[in-house]
Amino acid sequence: MFQITPLDRSNVAAIQQRIDNKTKPPGALGQLESLANKMALIQGSDRLSVANPYMLVFAADHGITEEGVSPFPSEVTGQMVMNFVAGGAAINCFCREFDIKIEVIDAGIKSPLPEHALIKRQRLGAGTANFCQGPAMTHEQVVQALTYGAIRVADCHRSGCNVVGLGEMGIGNTSAAAALMAAFTGLSAEDCVGKGTGLDDAGVRHKIEVIARALALHQHAFDDPMTTLAAVGGFEIAQMAGAMLKAAELKMLVLVDGFIASAAVMAAVAIEPACKDYFIFSHASNEQGHQRMLQHLDVEPLLNLGLRLGEGSGAALALPLLRAACAFYNDMASFESAGVSQV
Amino acid sequence: MFQITPLDRSNVAAIQQRIDNKTKPPGALGQLESLANKMALIQGSDRLSVANPYMLVFAADHGITEEGVSPFPSEVTGQMVMNFVAGGAAINCFCREFDIKIEVIDAGIKSPLPEHALIKRQRLGAGTANFCQGPAMTHEQVVQALTYGAIRVADCHRSGCNVVGLGEMGIGNTSAAAALMAAFTGLSAEDCVGKGTGLDDAGVRHKIEVIARALALHQHAFDDPMTTLAAVGGFEIAQMAGAMLKAAELKMLVLVDGFIASAAVMAAVAIEPACKDYFIFSHASNEQGHQRMLQHLDVEPLLNLGLRLGEGSGAALALPLLRAACAFYNDMASFESAGVSQV
Repeated sequence: MFQITPLDRSNVAAIQQRIDNKTKPPGALGQLESLANKMALIQGSDRLSVANPYMLVFAADHGITEEGVSPFPSEVTGQMVMNFVAGGAAINCFCREFDIKIEVIDAGIKSPLPEHALIKRQRLGAGTANFCQGPAMTHEQVVQALTYGAIRVADCHRSGCNVVGLGEMGIGNTSAAAALMAAFTGLSAEDCVGKGTGLDDAGVRHKIEVIARALALHQHAFDDPMTTLAAVGGFEIAQMAGAMLKAAELKMLVLVDGFIASAAVMAAVAIEPACKDYFIFSHASNEQGHQRMLQHLDVEPLLNLGLRLGEGSGAALALPLLRAACAFYNDMASFESAGVSQV
Repeated sequence: MFQITPLDRSNVAAIQQRIDNKTKPPGALGQLESLANKMALIQGSDRLSVANPYMLVFAADHGITEEGVSPFPSEVTGQMVMNFVAGGAAINCFCREFDIKIEVIDAGIKSPLPEHALIKRQRLGAGTANFCQGPAMTHEQVVQALTYGAIRVADCHRSGCNVVGLGEMGIGNTSAAAALMAAFTGLSAEDCVGKGTGLDDAGVRHKIEVIARALALHQHAFDDPMTTLAAVGGFEIAQMAGAMLKAAELKMLVLVDGFIASAAVMAAVAIEPACKDYFIFSHASNEQGHQRMLQHLDVEPLLNLGLRLGEGSGAALALPLLRAACAFYNDMASFESAGVSQV
C-alpha cells in the first residue's frame, strides 16, 4: 500500500565529518548533531530546512469509554475539536508561537460536528465499537483509515511542507494505545496502562482489568498489524498510522508526539518497518507506558518535560529544535573558515 | 552590593488555579506549567512576555591552562570571540533562529583583540593567574568583575529586555568551574571534574590531580564566596555571577546555560541566596559534574540534549519553551470560555 524507501545511510560519515568541521568540540551539540545528521540523510541536501510545517490533529471517539476508563465523557472530544478550531487549545497556542499550520480532522467523533471550514471530515463512524465486546473496527475501516491519513499528508506535501507533526484528541484513546502497545510488545496490561487524563489509583486498576480482558478476547488477532488495529485500535490512531506511512513514502520528516502517537508508530512500523527512519520522537511523556514504548522502539526522544496532553503539543514544542539543527548545519563556520585552531 | 527582593510566593496558588482552568487535564503541561507559574510570579502580570531577550557571552582566559588541563590552546578563546562577532558560531546560529540579541564581552582574554564595535571591553587582565600557584584573581578584580557583569545586564534592562541568557567562552574554564563546584559543595575533585572540551581518560585523571592540588592550596579560602571566587574562579565566571545578581535585582529572568554558568550560579547564590528565584536552568549538560551540580542546587533543567558546548547554546535552545509558556498562559481558553466539560 505504501512504497517506502529505506533511508540510504551511506552518507552518514560524510555528514558527520561536515558537522565535526564546525567550530565546536566534536559531539558538543549532543542530540542536535544526530538530529541534523538524520535530517541531512532524509533531505539529501547541503541545506536543511523546515518548510511549511503542518500539525495534523486527528480526533475520534472510542467505544471502550463505556467501560469507565476515562474521567472525562466522550462529549469532550467534540468540544475540544471546537476549541481547536476556535484557536483556544494548547496546541493552537504552540502552533501560533512556532509558525506551524494546524489542521483538524474528524476521524469519527461520536456526535457529528457542525460543518466547519477548518475541520476535515474523514469520519469512519460515530466512534469505534467497545473492544471489550468485539473488534473496535472492521478491516475495511482500517484500510480506509490508512488511506484517509495518507490523503492529509499528501495534501501537506503538495503545499511544500517537509515536516509534519501528528497529534490527536479522543477521550478513551490512552486505553486503545495501551492495548496496542501490549499487542505489539507482548507486555502485560499492567505495564502498558497509565493514568491517561488523570485517573486515580482505583481508576488505573479498573483500566488495567478492562485492557487485560480485551487482550484476552483479541489475542488471536495480534499476529498481524491490520487485525491488531481492527481489534483494539482507534479511528484517529489508524489515520495517524496512515499519515506516518505516507509521510515516510514522501520522504517527509514526521514529528511524533506522545503515547497515542507512539502507539500509531508501533502499528505503522509493524506494517512497514522502513518508515521508522523518517520519524523524530519529540518527547517522552508522563504517561507511564511511554518511556517503555520508546525503549521498545529503540529511540531517544528530544524532550522530557513531563507532558501528558496529546493534541501534538510535544511535537510542536520540539519543532524549534529542528530549526536549530538546520541553523547550525547550514550556517555555522568551519574551523578553517573562521580561523580557529583545531585540536 | 545587590538589593534582591526574594520572590513573593503568595500568588502561587492563584496562578496555578488560572493554569488549572485552561482546557487541559490538571498538570498535563508538566514542566511548562511550573515555568509559567514562575514567570507569572516574577513578572507579576496577567500577561507574560519574553521581551527583547539578550544573550551575553563573557569570554576570558585562564592561567590554569599552563597545567595542561585542556586539549585546546588559550588562543582559541580569542579566535572564538572573533567567530562570535563574525556570526559563525553555534550561539550565533541559535540566536538568529530564535530572535535573541547577542553581545560579546571581553572579560580578560590573554591577547587583547582588535577594537570591534561588537565586543564590549570589560577586561580584568590578560587571563587569570594559574590557581595552582596562588589565587586566580585579586579581591579587587572580583569586585570589579561583579560590577562589570551588572553593568551589562542593566544596559539590557534599559533596552526593554526582561529575559537574559548568559553564556561563556574560555579555554580552561571547566577547570575553574570544577574547582568552584568542589569549593561550594564540598565534593571531591573526582566528583567535579569532567572531560571539558574533550579530554581522554588520562587527561581527565591529570585534570583531577591538578584540581585536587588547587583545592588543597586554597581550602582556607572556601568559607567566603568572594575569596572562593578569587582563589579558583575566572574573570568571565565572576562577571556572569555579577550579571545574575543584577538581573535578579531588576526582576529579570535569567536563563542559565551549562556547567560553567551553573558554577557562576553557585557563586551568586552563595553571595545572595534570594537570586536563585529568578533563574531558569535551561539544560543538563553532558559534562559529568553538571547533573550533580543541578541536584545540589535543587533545580530541574528544561532540556537534556547531551550538550557540552557552552557559549550560552543551551540557554538559547530553551528560550522557545519560555515563549510557549507565555503563549499558553496568555491565550489558552478556559473550560468555561471554550464550553468544554470539566471533570
